[in-house]
Amino acid sequence: MADKPLAIVAGAGPGLGAALLQKFSDEGMMAVGLTRSGGTGPHDIRACDLCDEKALRATLAPLMQKHGAPQIVVHNTAHLVIQDFLETSLDDFTACWRSMVQSAIMLGQCVLQPMVRDGGGTFIVSGATASLRGGAKFAAFASAKFALRGLTQSLARSFQPAGVHVVHTILDGIIDTPASRDLHSLDPQRMIKPDDLAAAYWALAHQPKSTWSHEVDFRPQTESF
Amino acid sequence: MADKPLAIVAGAGPGLGAALLQKFSDEGMMAVGLTRSGGTGPHDIRACDLCDEKALRATLAPLMQKHGAPQIVVHNTAHLVIQDFLETSLDDFTACWRSMVQSAIMLGQCVLQPMVRDGGGTFIVSGATASLRGGAKFAAFASAKFALRGLTQSLARSFQPAGVHVVHTILDGIIDTPASRDLHSLDPQRMIKPDDLAAAYWALAHQPKSTWSHEVDFRPQTESF
Amino acid sequence: MADKPLAIVAGAGPGLGAALLQKFSDEGMMAVGLTRSGGTGPHDIRACDLCDEKALRATLAPLMQKHGAPQIVVHNTAHLVIQDFLETSLDDFTACWRSMVQSAIMLGQCVLQPMVRDGGGTFIVSGATASLRGGAKFAAFASAKFALRGLTQSLARSFQPAGVHVVHTILDGIIDTPASRDLHSLDPQRMIKPDDLAAAYWALAHQPKSTWSHEVDFRPQTESF
Amino acid sequence: MADKPLAIVAGAGPGLGAALLQKFSDEGMMAVGLTRSGGTGPHDIRACDLCDEKALRATLAPLMQKHGAPQIVVHNTAHLVIQDFLETSLDDFTACWRSMVQSAIMLGQCVLQPMVRDGGGTFIVSGATASLRGGAKFAAFASAKFALRGLTQSLARSFQPAGVHVVHTILDGIIDTPASRDLHSLDPQRMIKPDDLAAAYWALAHQPKSTWSHEVDFRPQTESF
Repeated sequence: MADKPLAIVAGAGPGLGAALLQKFSDEGMMAVGLTRSGGTGPHDIRACDLCDEKALRATLAPLMQKHGAPQIVVHNTAHLVIQDFLETSLDDFTACWRSMVQSAIMLGQCVLQPMVRDGGGTFIVSGATASLRGGAKFAAFASAKFALRGLTQSLARSFQPAGVHVVHTILDGIIDTPASRDLHSLDPQRMIKPDDLAAAYWALAHQPKSTWSHEVDFRPQTESF
Repeated sequence: MADKPLAIVAGAGPGLGAALLQKFSDEGMMAVGLTRSGGTGPHDIRACDLCDEKALRATLAPLMQKHGAPQIVVHNTAHLVIQDFLETSLDDFTACWRSMVQSAIMLGQCVLQPMVRDGGGTFIVSGATASLRGGAKFAAFASAKFALRGLTQSLARSFQPAGVHVVHTILDGIIDTPASRDLHSLDPQRMIKPDDLAAAYWALAHQPKSTWSHEVDFRPQTESF
Repeated sequence: MADKPLAIVAGAGPGLGAALLQKFSDEGMMAVGLTRSGGTGPHDIRACDLCDEKALRATLAPLMQKHGAPQIVVHNTAHLVIQDFLETSLDDFTACWRSMVQSAIMLGQCVLQPMVRDGGGTFIVSGATASLRGGAKFAAFASAKFALRGLTQSLARSFQPAGVHVVHTILDGIIDTPASRDLHSLDPQRMIKPDDLAAAYWALAHQPKSTWSHEVDFRPQTESF
Repeated sequence: MADKPLAIVAGAGPGLGAALLQKFSDEGMMAVGLTRSGGTGPHDIRACDLCDEKALRATLAPLMQKHGAPQIVVHNTAHLVIQDFLETSLDDFTACWRSMVQSAIMLGQCVLQPMVRDGGGTFIVSGATASLRGGAKFAAFASAKFALRGLTQSLARSFQPAGVHVVHTILDGIIDTPASRDLHSLDPQRMIKPDDLAAAYWALAHQPKSTWSHEVDFRPQTESF
């Protein structure tokens, strides 16, 4: 196992996160998920507060020592707040920013230099429709997703010359999970399948150096836009 | 003075802030600037931590009681960080976000409902080139400016139907101040004149309801883009 | 009259075109409209096929000889096609492109060099929502409006260094004219008032060189976006 | 051969066009290129003026009769003009528009309805950096590329609900061909490899319906943006 290349999925919930871990494992990688509370089940999901740099380094250090710097890192955290601005507390804003932006900053600080040193890899950040449009009840969520997009652009311009491919995805649709089926009265056929998206992320992580994509949108065929 | 309409300039530094206070005063408004340390000189600049909702409400309450809700509010804070990502600390990111985003959240929470109640007004947020592009050394600054743009879009979609005009400007150039003259080896003729910009903001605050602008860029004639 | 500065409004229909001519006249300019069929009424509207460079030069030459190069030029033609793509003929596409893009090319070819020579001026192009979004039945119209936006950006980058201010507006709403009142079952209070827009264009044409705008959106307060 | 699925490459020059034909053939498709002058060599490249609907229908009809509607269509024509605006003739503008926009209109008119009828497929349009930015000497080229982007968005919104996937790519770099090696003094390692791009287009044509991309950028690792 020591030689298996490392993949990190930060924000490894039951939808896309689990599908990514499955895909990366299937492809022979040492796939490790990170969530606040850890996980049980088939995947190696470790409890780690992504906003706590010390905890994050403590979690990643032994993995990187054994497997080298990760070859794939996916940032996939989300904290959804849909609320009138006047009802949205500063805590809501802070929670969105910490969950989605601070965690990406911490993750980048921990992995990007080792990735450069070890010859590259791919750093993928999951955006959303709200990365491009600040809707009426999305002040906290869109503001954080915008911030994450700006950060990711900056990382691409900083680290691509050094060999790390940085990608920002625009997920324009609802990911099919048990929770989203409960929440949305939407035909699952009209949702993004986590396995399809995981395969797409895998492909992004294997783009040849002559054709790197920085921003890619994904939406179900039936999603109007 | 009690009947003078109120204008608030949050982030009232020596460049655009001072010019806005001058313009709003010249036009007969009660123009009040807010900065962390207050100000001396010709303008009424009060010391107020814009991130401290309680302090902000305490500063604004007597003004609003006397003058009604502000008719113009300009958010004009900035905290510039230009640094390699790996040299940029979480504190730098947090400082940018607090200075530019949290302050706008707090300001909006304090003034938007009174503005709706009192029949409208204009809420202008100053963006920058980095609101649209995350450059290599601008991770912290661009991330916060992107966030601010997403927030402002959301505010426009939330409050324009209720009568408050919300504007986001893209300032694509260097504002001519003593500090920027020192910092940049740039002919002042190639800089944005604070007085010109203040006049433009005044005009935005007076657009008729049939022709509201949401996003406007401003750059010197000589600025390439 | 010989010393009156010249303003040209290409596409001088009864809505924005007439309002611009009125505004420019009121401000003391020699305001001349150009339309395919000319016009009667209070304004000086000359018959000229904007796509016919020879005719255009013949119309403009005596005006420029008498008044110098125009200080304001507005391109404001429109040819609306809303149709399923498979029902949209090549003629529809060509008509949109000729009406909106070729006319702007011809106009630019005729006036920009004289404007540079005579010390500047402002060249304003009217865009629309469809300049930014290709909607389902808008293949011909959006394609032409996109083209016009690309052209206008290029003109800005080419001629602003030489002193001609080039502006692209995004008109996101319906302009209140007798025809649009007939066409749309929309409260006129929710439409763009031609006079308001004409005043805004006048202001754009008088922005100081330190704060030139390139792209500005205008929409009624009540327009959702 | 009758059952081989059909792929059409409109604009089948020696770079991306040839690579696409190779890739589609390798994958077992009946891959047909269309260029004005036809081609010799390993690929089936037919002479066809893409702007001549009658000729285009005459070329495509027997192919579609034998193989059914194409499952992949790539629009890949280009007509590059880099010139000062005042030196750019109307013929240059028209040539760009005809080469890149009219050809896409004609192609869409011919294939989209059959594709819908036969159950779908993918229609990919090649854009460029100039699809998003109108540079100073790119008035003709950018204007046409903008137009093509608007058209493609409209096609996506029109035909995706009916099952045809419509993609617009942003090729942000120079494609490595003998001609471009001559033209640009650029290390070929810094160019887009046609084979890599052909593989990426193949992948786009096989995205599952739950994760369709509409706009994807491709650039070499070393390309700054």
